[in-house]
Amino acid sequence: MAQKPSIPKGTRDFSPSEIAKRNYIFDSIKKNFQTYGFQPIETPSFENSETLLGKYGEEGDRLIFKILNSGDFISKVDDVTYSSKNSATIAPRITEKALRYDLTVPFARYVVMHQNELDFPFKRYQIQPVWRADRPQKGRFREFFQCDADVVGSDSLLQEVELIQLYDAVFADLKLDGVTIKMNNRKILAGIAEVIGAKHLLIDFTVALDKLDKIGEEGVKKEMLSKGISKEAIDKASPLFEPQGSNVNQLERLETLLESSEEGKKGLEELRYILETISSIGLQTAKLTIDVTLARGLNYYTGAIFEVAAPDGVKMGSIGGGGRYDDLTGIFGLKDVSGVGISFGLDRIYLVLEELNLFPKSVDRTLDVLCLNFGAKEALASLKLITVLRKNGVFADVYPSNAKIQKQFKYANNRKVPYVILLGAEELNSNSFIVKHMESGEQTTYSFSELDKFISTL
Amino acid sequence: MAQKPSIPKGTRDFSPSEIAKRNYIFDSIKKNFQTYGFQPIETPSFENSETLLGKYGEEGDRLIFKILNSGDFISKVDDVTYSSKNSATIAPRITEKALRYDLTVPFARYVVMHQNELDFPFKRYQIQPVWRADRPQKGRFREFFQCDADVVGSDSLLQEVELIQLYDAVFADLKLDGVTIKMNNRKILAGIAEVIGAKHLLIDFTVALDKLDKIGEEGVKKEMLSKGISKEAIDKASPLFEPQGSNVNQLERLETLLESSEEGKKGLEELRYILETISSIGLQTAKLTIDVTLARGLNYYTGAIFEVAAPDGVKMGSIGGGGRYDDLTGIFGLKDVSGVGISFGLDRIYLVLEELNLFPKSVDRTLDVLCLNFGAKEALASLKLITVLRKNGVFADVYPSNAKIQKQFKYANNRKVPYVILLGAEELNSNSFIVKHMESGEQTTYSFSELDKFISTL
Repeated sequence: MAQKPSIPKGTRDFSPSEIAKRNYIFDSIKKNFQTYGFQPIETPSFENSETLLGKYGEEGDRLIFKILNSGDFISKVDDVTYSSKNSATIAPRITEKALRYDLTVPFARYVVMHQNELDFPFKRYQIQPVWRADRPQKGRFREFFQCDADVVGSDSLLQEVELIQLYDAVFADLKLDGVTIKMNNRKILAGIAEVIGAKHLLIDFTVALDKLDKIGEEGVKKEMLSKGISKEAIDKASPLFEPQGSNVNQLERLETLLESSEEGKKGLEELRYILETISSIGLQTAKLTIDVTLARGLNYYTGAIFEVAAPDGVKMGSIGGGGRYDDLTGIFGLKDVSGVGISFGLDRIYLVLEELNLFPKSVDRTLDVLCLNFGAKEALASLKLITVLRKNGVFADVYPSNAKIQKQFKYANNRKVPYVILLGAEELNSNSFIVKHMESGEQTTYSFSELDKFISTL
Repeated sequence: MAQKPSIPKGTRDFSPSEIAKRNYIFDSIKKNFQTYGFQPIETPSFENSETLLGKYGEEGDRLIFKILNSGDFISKVDDVTYSSKNSATIAPRITEKALRYDLTVPFARYVVMHQNELDFPFKRYQIQPVWRADRPQKGRFREFFQCDADVVGSDSLLQEVELIQLYDAVFADLKLDGVTIKMNNRKILAGIAEVIGAKHLLIDFTVALDKLDKIGEEGVKKEMLSKGISKEAIDKASPLFEPQGSNVNQLERLETLLESSEEGKKGLEELRYILETISSIGLQTAKLTIDVTLARGLNYYTGAIFEVAAPDGVKMGSIGGGGRYDDLTGIFGLKDVSGVGISFGLDRIYLVLEELNLFPKSVDRTLDVLCLNFGAKEALASLKLITVLRKNGVFADVYPSNAKIQKQFKYANNRKVPYVILLGAEELNSNSFIVKHMESGEQTTYSFSELDKFISTL
């Protein structure tokens, strides 16, 4: 009995049309990564478990897919562990490898392993799938691509400036006008926590603040109180909850608020430099704004924090994010290497382009010309024609059997072929072929020697 | 204590230069897949175990990487099975998913699941990694890419003709002249087995014959004898061991040998049609030859069988292979769909191009222009320049700090940058910049307004 096939939940098949649209986005990102001097690397789909485990917190460890050891894996488990029947203690005895969870930890591992071959600052990009055993839900998958660009080995703020330009360049190429690049700085968040007297509660403070979009001012304040941040401290932080206004207004307000915090002032200085440099160079279509409530995995970032929001009116979470992190490679023994990077959210960008109808009309063309098949001799002549078309880069095909012409035309329609070539007995006799433009219905006859002429119309 | 990082055996990190060379091959294959009317699909990295298991024989099943179930996986194992401590029976209880082993079975699964959305004949290509728990050795990896093109839903021999042209087109594009496309037909092998009276031993006969290259005539005959094929039968098959000669000679010899086998004659007719059609159209650089000892996974193929050998003088196994198989989708419930396909061996093609020095010289360029950094003001002016360069598709960068100029030049040399821009205080004052051509040492001064002039020299 044949099985009825299915695919694992949270995974996807991609059709030719979906692949074409995804490649349109990938190509645009890649092209800009390259013009900005980033170099591609790729790492294995699975890493040794110890490379990944413990790097993403407890929850992350649970979401990592582990690969069962080959062969008689049970024999490697000692009796005591085996009889415990405890999945958590048995798992590490029967798995040695795990699917990568993101591209950042493998990148850190790469930099450390290859440090002697690399020229620092090393600007790398990486576009590969990652896997997470997350509960699948709308827009969340167990296999998805990440597109990351990172620089390691330079603490120059020029990198932050370039990464903002890079976001702008990619979204301008994709004709996705009006995205907002939100920017913050970990040092500013730390400064605020310091001046309101909640320095020891920095994480709780920012985790709560980060939820402003979702739970509103009252919700954030309630959470802060519940975490032990005093009402007095929260009142001092009130400028955060006011309408944020222009970048200039915000810089002024932060200057007042952070007057007594060295760290806060350092963050403010960085923010100001980036803003001023970007404003001196200009952006194509993106908007750069300060958002002091922006935190993203704060533990991770140490300087600038970025997040990109889709154009106004499109309901979508962030379509990109990143920031500066110090000492990423420290976990693998290479100290004091500063890094900064951004990533693009492919699946969400895809949905936004789809919603705004921004994919080019011809993005999923798969066939330019189809020769109909009128029999063996005619098909051979057709095959000779399309061999030349193909050599000229035309996507061309000959229908493989002399099926009823209606059936062949139906196939041409389904494949959305713009041109159909008719080369029947009569044409073969006169060394000619007829080109039918499918949209207009117009027919043109060419002699075999005029093939170039037809190619030039494509 | 930081870990000393490593990667799992049989896997690889790819450096920017390696990625560039791999992409050069991928791009050439993709371009030709597309001009031949093939459409891309992608399938998930892991499939439900039942989709894969039992499709590749016992040995294949052992080589499939299985993914451990998440959560308390042990609780799903019944006590009897658990106390057996038998890895083979426990594995299916604690794993539900497995990494794909090839692209063919997932493709069959795809066709069956999506049959109502597809237009047949469906020509698909797929370029994705696969995983095998093979013992790693030189040139054999646990993760590697497959590049497959298959047509399903057409039994026309035009497909075989096109696939041969496709091989030729790709290798001509890669400037890999002189590959040999070897062709055989399962029906010819069956016919030979029939006429020598070993029809019931067809598999043993062809498995032995397939080893001719490796173990020589005597070895093959010995193996045949040991499998129960009579000496008399082997003697009758002696034409197989003679020097094969030209295609025409071989067709003649086979005609005589297969006179009494209907199946054999059918295979011969197919072979002849393909040869004649190809010879009428011509190939660019590849050679097409009959090889009656060619079998490849015979159980699988039902008609044409292909294998591509690297140019004479290059020691390398086959760099491509394929053939026609009937009823591939039958395992998933869709009967009577004929398919034919070929694949390209990326890793081996890479090694051959490397050995013959056939990668274009500029294939791994990662940076066209580097602006040196003489300080904050100069760097800002440089950044403005390279923003324009980048918009024009130039791979450009500014060194991120005003490190010693020697260090910056060293970086430029390591990255093999052809042009370095010098924009110091003096140049800034006169709105100009100096371009140094690194190979010749020649320096040219341009004013800011002459940037286009510089771009046009690139």
